[in-house]
Amino acid sequence: MLQVWALEGIPEIAPGADLIDVIARSAGTSLRDGDILAVTSKIVSKAEGRIIAADDREEAITAETVRVVATRTSPTGHTTRIVENRLGIVSAAAGVDASNTAEGTVLLLPLDPDASARALCTGLRERLGVTVGVLITDTLGRAWRDGQTDTAIGAAGVHVFEDLRGRTDAEGRPLVVTLPCVADELAAAADLVKGKTSRRPVAVVRGRADLVGDLDLPGARSIVRDGENDMFRLGADEAYAAGFAAGAAAVDAAD
Amino acid sequence: MLQVWALEGIPEIAPGADLIDVIARSAGTSLRDGDILAVTSKIVSKAEGRIIAADDREEAITAETVRVVATRTSPTGHTTRIVENRLGIVSAAAGVDASNTAEGTVLLLPLDPDASARALCTGLRERLGVTVGVLITDTLGRAWRDGQTDTAIGAAGVHVFEDLRGRTDAEGRPLVVTLPCVADELAAAADLVKGKTSRRPVAVVRGRADLVGDLDLPGARSIVRDGENDMFRLGADEAYAAGFAAGAAAVDAAD
Repeated sequence: MLQVWALEGIPEIAPGADLIDVIARSAGTSLRDGDILAVTSKIVSKAEGRIIAADDREEAITAETVRVVATRTSPTGHTTRIVENRLGIVSAAAGVDASNTAEGTVLLLPLDPDASARALCTGLRERLGVTVGVLITDTLGRAWRDGQTDTAIGAAGVHVFEDLRGRTDAEGRPLVVTLPCVADELAAAADLVKGKTSRRPVAVVRGRADLVGDLDLPGARSIVRDGENDMFRLGADEAYAAGFAAGAAAVDAAD
Repeated sequence: MLQVWALEGIPEIAPGADLIDVIARSAGTSLRDGDILAVTSKIVSKAEGRIIAADDREEAITAETVRVVATRTSPTGHTTRIVENRLGIVSAAAGVDASNTAEGTVLLLPLDPDASARALCTGLRERLGVTVGVLITDTLGRAWRDGQTDTAIGAAGVHVFEDLRGRTDAEGRPLVVTLPCVADELAAAADLVKGKTSRRPVAVVRGRADLVGDLDLPGARSIVRDGENDMFRLGADEAYAAGFAAGAAAVDAAD
């Protein structure tokens, strides 16, 4: 049995807030060994002071962008930029977010979500005396499917993949699906109790203590496929345009 | 509080099996109004007799394929085909699956997972007298992120999206993230209790009764973005190659 619930009583987070203290107070004595905390990246960003003026939003997206993957302008003139940010994450607007922020401001993603997760996990284990895991979550769109799901962009003390490579199915045959991304599945489960319209930015998942482990387990950075190895490292229109230019240049050169 | 657990005692499913009866017997009197069942597509395929000889696997992938999205051959010579299948779903190998199947056989996806979900949902509501929702789930890889997560490929009696368009955040500002795909998040949560190595193909999610509704709600087909509207409708290499050929031809024509 898996149980998932949101912590109550998390206050609005201001820059410099001590999230370990905030979460520990909210959790009280409710946590046990093997519980996994899914913390919305937004409150980590706020605590880290990753807040900028909304007027600088487009500039901030550019600054956070390592590589433009695809862009599309809608009939109404709104341009969506799908980019790879400095964390390697491919998303719309480089994670620059205007929801649930103070008027006139937008939030950037935490500087290093794996490091933030590790600091939270270390602090909460010490403070509460229980061996918990910590995920930092963000809401991402995806290719091929509409809508968004919550995913893990930071992780500490929890296995991000359940490694089934070499394991066998009920008939003793090798499993073909080899690498369930349990961190993303945990983040998704947590989103079902957090909601997006209320202040419940931290959820607890209980029932997969087998996934909780040492603080030096690989972080969520290990989930990110690097561009070179990704068959979808570039949007179809962008790749076509690059190919078109190269094809034309090759013929020109041959002439 | 969300609770997620797997039903116990589901037997091996043979072609022609009555899944309504199988699930109803396994669930007994444990289900309540608002519970959501996440049923692994594999057992639906088996009940529907969607089983073919393993020797025909490559041929079956071709037959299930509407459109090749991308292919890549590994250094060991294994070719991965990312394709759009007749359900519009983009995945490796068109969902043709060799795990947890009888020796020498592979499984195709259910013919119409939304119809399968509707039949199951209708039957279970009648038989058990409780208003449940039903998802049919499959394990899918994704662009940009390693590993796989479970997703909803069929749905009945449950909202696949939580429509927050027009809703506001805690500060009264419009929410930017507009369309959480709760069906995929429910499927992901269910996978955390089903596992891949044991026979627990059906999970129950309790605690989001607000997502359960009429039998004529849109199915999981509505999650699938159609190729034309997808910025990643073609792999980067494939789009580049198409562009290259077109660019070369354009210059040739102009000469």
